[in-house]
Amino acid sequence: MGRALTIALDAMGGDRAPGVVLDGAELARERYPDARFLIFGDEERLRRDLSRHPAVISVSEIVHTAEVVDNDMKPSQALRRGRGSSMGLAIDAVRAGNADVVVSAGNTGALMALAKFTLRTMEGIDRPALTSLMPTLRGESAMLDLGANLECSERNLVQFAIMGAAYSRVVLGISRPKVGLLNVGSEELKGHDELKMAAELLKSVPLPLEFVGFVEGDDVGKGTIDVYVADGFTGNIALKMAEGTARMVIGLMQKSFRNSPLSMLGYILARSGLRSLQDHMDPNTHNGGVLLGLNGLVVKSHGGADASGYASAIGVAIDMAKGDLSARIAEDLKNFDTPAPPHKEAAAS
Amino acid sequence: MGRALTIALDAMGGDRAPGVVLDGAELARERYPDARFLIFGDEERLRRDLSRHPAVISVSEIVHTAEVVDNDMKPSQALRRGRGSSMGLAIDAVRAGNADVVVSAGNTGALMALAKFTLRTMEGIDRPALTSLMPTLRGESAMLDLGANLECSERNLVQFAIMGAAYSRVVLGISRPKVGLLNVGSEELKGHDELKMAAELLKSVPLPLEFVGFVEGDDVGKGTIDVYVADGFTGNIALKMAEGTARMVIGLMQKSFRNSPLSMLGYILARSGLRSLQDHMDPNTHNGGVLLGLNGLVVKSHGGADASGYASAIGVAIDMAKGDLSARIAEDLKNFDTPAPPHKEAAAS
Repeated sequence: MGRALTIALDAMGGDRAPGVVLDGAELARERYPDARFLIFGDEERLRRDLSRHPAVISVSEIVHTAEVVDNDMKPSQALRRGRGSSMGLAIDAVRAGNADVVVSAGNTGALMALAKFTLRTMEGIDRPALTSLMPTLRGESAMLDLGANLECSERNLVQFAIMGAAYSRVVLGISRPKVGLLNVGSEELKGHDELKMAAELLKSVPLPLEFVGFVEGDDVGKGTIDVYVADGFTGNIALKMAEGTARMVIGLMQKSFRNSPLSMLGYILARSGLRSLQDHMDPNTHNGGVLLGLNGLVVKSHGGADASGYASAIGVAIDMAKGDLSARIAEDLKNFDTPAPPHKEAAAS
Repeated sequence: MGRALTIALDAMGGDRAPGVVLDGAELARERYPDARFLIFGDEERLRRDLSRHPAVISVSEIVHTAEVVDNDMKPSQALRRGRGSSMGLAIDAVRAGNADVVVSAGNTGALMALAKFTLRTMEGIDRPALTSLMPTLRGESAMLDLGANLECSERNLVQFAIMGAAYSRVVLGISRPKVGLLNVGSEELKGHDELKMAAELLKSVPLPLEFVGFVEGDDVGKGTIDVYVADGFTGNIALKMAEGTARMVIGLMQKSFRNSPLSMLGYILARSGLRSLQDHMDPNTHNGGVLLGLNGLVVKSHGGADASGYASAIGVAIDMAKGDLSARIAEDLKNFDTPAPPHKEAAAS
């Protein structure tokens, strides 16, 4: 792609918006000098804050929006009242072709609902899935769905596997990703029916991925496979357990260094290595969940991300757009007709 | 309790049975000199192995069983063929009053099924739940269900909350435990219907616990509350994610120490503090899940536990029996009539 990429930013979404969004754009601007921004939000406020960021101003256009989607808004309310908000209009910029990708740190449920309504799911995909990278012993693996769909059919899970594999090809550069279904046991007789049926489907159809079967929660940290697939409830619990546990272990480690002057000296000597460990585990480093399966690229930043975390999310957005992720997924789906649902799905939506 | 406690051991259950079971009994014998053992398994093999453990022999009785429940046996097969096995007879010793508690490192599904069949659930409890302690920044918290019931009604979840609170009173000594439901968000509008209904029930009925509402996965490591309640699928994923992530972070930490001679020297100086961190995180330290809600105490050891881990499980068993956990749960249930199920539950069993 020769032309500059344009990233739509929902400047009013997130716990520390718009400050963190603009600080993050400044950092991203340094890393990706050819990126352009379309910034949606309260124009007066943004102009005031942007006065500290002349480099961002030079590559940005501001679109004024008076409305904001707040954190308590239900998805149904967002659909009724949020379409003219900074989030709604930023998504619409992707639909209209004015931006290549949108980044928001706002309310996840609202983002999901507005993105799905505005961009529609790709042909062959019933529901989009939130996808992100997780740190492992070997590097990083992808996991989805991280919370977009609390309940999933076997058909949804198979589609997630295909999308996750395409994502891992673009982001991790793995030509034939190893994909597993997260379950409570690796034996075939365990788990919910949807998982068992998804496993049957993934085994029986030729796909551009290597299906390894069921994997358990303690497998994720090992990084033995590239893509972990789960329903959104399970994936969200898994992601947050991993984040919380990593924070706990690092917290206990720091406490143990303060136990004695000798330990403290040890810490000082080992500091640089430990700092790279902390960076590897820091959720900000891995910030930027991608909503896969829509006719347009949507990246969700942690609501509490700092400027560096927000810049990571912008980086993910740029990688996705450059890798032409949507086209890759569409290509993979062409080779696979997801089977018709064996039972009623009308209630799901 | 003046009299010696008797612990029934399923000597043939677990990846390294019976060796690890007998080694674990030896360690437990040192820590709890007044405990007695009823050991179920292949008598010839046990007598041979026990020759290395004279201290265990002196406080043990061996009961010969020819059959073994293996790891691939389904719960239904265990019910048909496993009742005369080392696992089946060890459980039956509790029912018959010949032992105060049973410990097994065997097949979880089979143990659940046989224990439920033999001991029956307590009055007021529909399903037993597997419960264990998890390490946190502040110490330890309890979590249940860790895999006994993959799908749970709101009624099951409320009963788990009551049982988990009683467990935390006995094990952690907390008079009014803080209890939360594991969910994908702390807002009331999120999560499965069962979770929302369970939250309503827990808020509306006076119970010997403090219900704090929904908590997220990243809250668990903080240890801000005492008991985390989830269905068995979610609880199992959460537990294993925590174990896997802790192992990963410690693995990365060790790798970072080997990065340079200076880091290595730092490690040597900080070693004792770091070792106590590793002990705190080691699943063997927290080994011993309790199957709550039965007319009899059943403790499940990790299948892969080492001798020290197996001794921890025996320690948990002794604590439960001494704390008279079953009586405490029965007492709490008396004050709470679990509401009649609002919808059909016949299919659940």
